[in-house]
Amino acid sequence: MTEPRRSTAPIDFYFDFSSPYGYFAAEKIDALAERYGRTVLWHPFLLGVTFKVTGLAPLPSIPLKGAYSMHDIERSARYFGLPFKQPSTFPIPTQHAARAFLWINDRSPQKAREFGLAAYRAYFVNDVNISDLGAVLDIAAGVGIDRDELSGVLSGTEIKARLAAEVDLGLSRGVFGSPFIIVDGEAFWGADRLPQVERWLAEGGF
Amino acid sequence: MTEPRRSTAPIDFYFDFSSPYGYFAAEKIDALAERYGRTVLWHPFLLGVTFKVTGLAPLPSIPLKGAYSMHDIERSARYFGLPFKQPSTFPIPTQHAARAFLWINDRSPQKAREFGLAAYRAYFVNDVNISDLGAVLDIAAGVGIDRDELSGVLSGTEIKARLAAEVDLGLSRGVFGSPFIIVDGEAFWGADRLPQVERWLAEGGF
Repeated sequence: MTEPRRSTAPIDFYFDFSSPYGYFAAEKIDALAERYGRTVLWHPFLLGVTFKVTGLAPLPSIPLKGAYSMHDIERSARYFGLPFKQPSTFPIPTQHAARAFLWINDRSPQKAREFGLAAYRAYFVNDVNISDLGAVLDIAAGVGIDRDELSGVLSGTEIKARLAAEVDLGLSRGVFGSPFIIVDGEAFWGADRLPQVERWLAEGGF
Repeated sequence: MTEPRRSTAPIDFYFDFSSPYGYFAAEKIDALAERYGRTVLWHPFLLGVTFKVTGLAPLPSIPLKGAYSMHDIERSARYFGLPFKQPSTFPIPTQHAARAFLWINDRSPQKAREFGLAAYRAYFVNDVNISDLGAVLDIAAGVGIDRDELSGVLSGTEIKARLAAEVDLGLSRGVFGSPFIIVDGEAFWGADRLPQVERWLAEGGF
């Protein structure tokens, strides 16, 4: 008997900055992966694009399910032990934050995580509307990114094409929600699937 | 300091016989409730009615999410340690099974559970199409219900009105999915919320 050879490939983590469940997963995924010797590739994503493909709609707009979900989000935050305050504007467009994340991530994944978590906390804890470009630049500056340089990047066309390609790639892999986690080809949707992700990592599948 | 007084009120459990996540919860909910000194009131429900209110659609019909969900259902069955085989026809209308459940439940909740679990296992393990009236009567007979008497009941108008009223009552309580569990007024949707239900029962809220 030999021990099954465990994969050491990075985990893919797709998230939209307007997704509260994405925020919960962002706070948990790196530590979870690390317990099993894995790293995580963070991929900012735009749920609005997937809604056009799936025909789905933002949670708050759905009768019955919308009201339930707003309540479930607050309760789930407590369940995960995370601070949370429902933003006064929800959901929001998140292109600026996603593009900033990508540009930072191409230079320093560690710095991008700091930015990503800071942006999530700004939106879901301190009610900062991160659809605003100035807010995104402020948050980036707060983690040591050159504000003027990032401002120039975000006004260009290159970073827009970069995010569009990233989202297209996600769609081609079946990503339709946030958070969406892919472990060795196995897809998991939702912060509530983190226990299944953990078991998959621990047992190499089940 | 006094120990907080724990509720002993029954838990409400709503389910559709065509819902695989409802099947998973049905296999778990009574034992879970019993660990905290609670009983469970089982309420058969018709998701088709809620789809008209929410604008949602059966999972298999949704691009990307449908394919993911079929895979998630099989994986979740393994996660819960339950037998499962994707039915060849899915989803199906479940009025006959729901009405039979209600009629049996009004006479014996214990017998209704036996019927409910037998119907779920017939559909999700043995690929019996329980939209068929004859299949429902066979399953009921298998748990000791008089086949002819139930057949007469299910052809009448009274039991139809009874199920319609039960579904209306669920909708008025915000039920929009399956499984849907209400503990002391707190609503939980999905088999993946069972850990939150358990914590709610253990701590009297969180």
